[in-house]
Amino acid sequence: MKFIDKLLNMSRKNRSLLCIGLDPDPELMPGVDVVQFNRAIIEATSDLACAYKPNLAFYEALGSAGLAILEETIKHIPGDVPVIADAKRGDIGNTAKAYARALFSVFGFDAATVSPYLGYDSIEPFVSYQDKGVFILCRTSNRGAVDFQDLHTNGLPLYETVAHKAREWNIHDNIGLVVGATCPEELKRVRSICPEMCLLIPGVGAQGGDLASAVSYGVDARGERAIFNVSRQILYASRGKDFARVARTVADRIRRQINSHLASHPEQK
Amino acid sequence: MKFIDKLLNMSRKNRSLLCIGLDPDPELMPGVDVVQFNRAIIEATSDLACAYKPNLAFYEALGSAGLAILEETIKHIPGDVPVIADAKRGDIGNTAKAYARALFSVFGFDAATVSPYLGYDSIEPFVSYQDKGVFILCRTSNRGAVDFQDLHTNGLPLYETVAHKAREWNIHDNIGLVVGATCPEELKRVRSICPEMCLLIPGVGAQGGDLASAVSYGVDARGERAIFNVSRQILYASRGKDFARVARTVADRIRRQINSHLASHPEQK
Repeated sequence: MKFIDKLLNMSRKNRSLLCIGLDPDPELMPGVDVVQFNRAIIEATSDLACAYKPNLAFYEALGSAGLAILEETIKHIPGDVPVIADAKRGDIGNTAKAYARALFSVFGFDAATVSPYLGYDSIEPFVSYQDKGVFILCRTSNRGAVDFQDLHTNGLPLYETVAHKAREWNIHDNIGLVVGATCPEELKRVRSICPEMCLLIPGVGAQGGDLASAVSYGVDARGERAIFNVSRQILYASRGKDFARVARTVADRIRRQINSHLASHPEQK
Repeated sequence: MKFIDKLLNMSRKNRSLLCIGLDPDPELMPGVDVVQFNRAIIEATSDLACAYKPNLAFYEALGSAGLAILEETIKHIPGDVPVIADAKRGDIGNTAKAYARALFSVFGFDAATVSPYLGYDSIEPFVSYQDKGVFILCRTSNRGAVDFQDLHTNGLPLYETVAHKAREWNIHDNIGLVVGATCPEELKRVRSICPEMCLLIPGVGAQGGDLASAVSYGVDARGERAIFNVSRQILYASRGKDFARVARTVADRIRRQINSHLASHPEQK
């Protein structure tokens, strides 16, 4: 099954555009190990999310044991919920092949984020896994995004050039884009360039992006193909033993908030 | 000790600007495991190299066991030889901090490669480890480099803008740039923008970059601060049991070739 179909199935089943970022920080966990923590979060939220997104940095920060924890975590995610590797990889062809194999074949992710800086031959090895999703960084949610992504290239900001290229490269209908909720105008521009592409939208929650405008500008004409990621705001909503229950409450609240903004989306009226 | 001093020490001791890329491909190894292979390569070449550079993709492709192999490999490298993590990481601040901790504190690398696409706050967490080296991707050695790196931004190609920014950000004197040997004119431009910066130059060897022009354009005025990386051409020079011995022969030949091109460098005459 193609990534986009797996995503749409789960999104419709759970009535959710919420992706939960599984970014473990042992210092914020209430006396459980990381696998127990992740497993409890997954069990408490898997009927509320459209996808999970572990960011590899937080596993690598635990050394090789961290990658074993990541393998274990993925096993606890129900098979019909898509899992996105937030890896932001980007390397020359031969090496990109090894990264794609690592993420898709070895760890078994359904999708991965990649960086565009090295151009098409760094992305092609990922895209050639036609059933997997590939989210290319376009306009990111951080302050430093302006340093290069907003520079004008041939009259367009670099991030828009990336969006145009992504559309051109999307021959297998498995490419998406990463656009931060912290930059709603840029999100609107990218959605207008790629009306049918799946967008991965981080930056609501701890990063402070406005959810209403992110939903309004981020979804496609049917109110779909947008994934709103929240990590810390859900995972660490409580630092006590009730962390999983509180995470569920917060996740459900955000899911409903997204849906309420969707309800006012032009096509849904 | 700062990375650049550790590098210059080893480079002068071994009279070498050759970095050996430890990129394991089990299919090309003659019936030894990856740790044995890497260890044999290191033992056969550590008096010929100025640094080693494992690319993390090839370890991640072996799953969590691969990261354990990486940890083991690093232990076998003599403490005075710098080890560069070719990771090309780039993520938002909070996540970049986790990557920097992973590479510098957990795995213990002396330097790392990072991607510039997310801007300064994605690089700052690496740079704040003042004794570690941070190589920012500038003009890469692959064909796809032209897709974005060569686009003009404010009259300059993006890669030159990255070089100018890197110079501006280099307050701790620990930033370097990655420029491919496959694009000698671009290498020359970058060296003229950053005359005193350390350049990591892949692309000679299997990728076909011309060594003479890479040396001529890549080194600083003293014939230093350039690292020429070769991986496959050395590691897999022989696929037989004699792989380490043959790797040594090839590594020494390339080291001497670099030095002979150095001898014709203007400042050395």
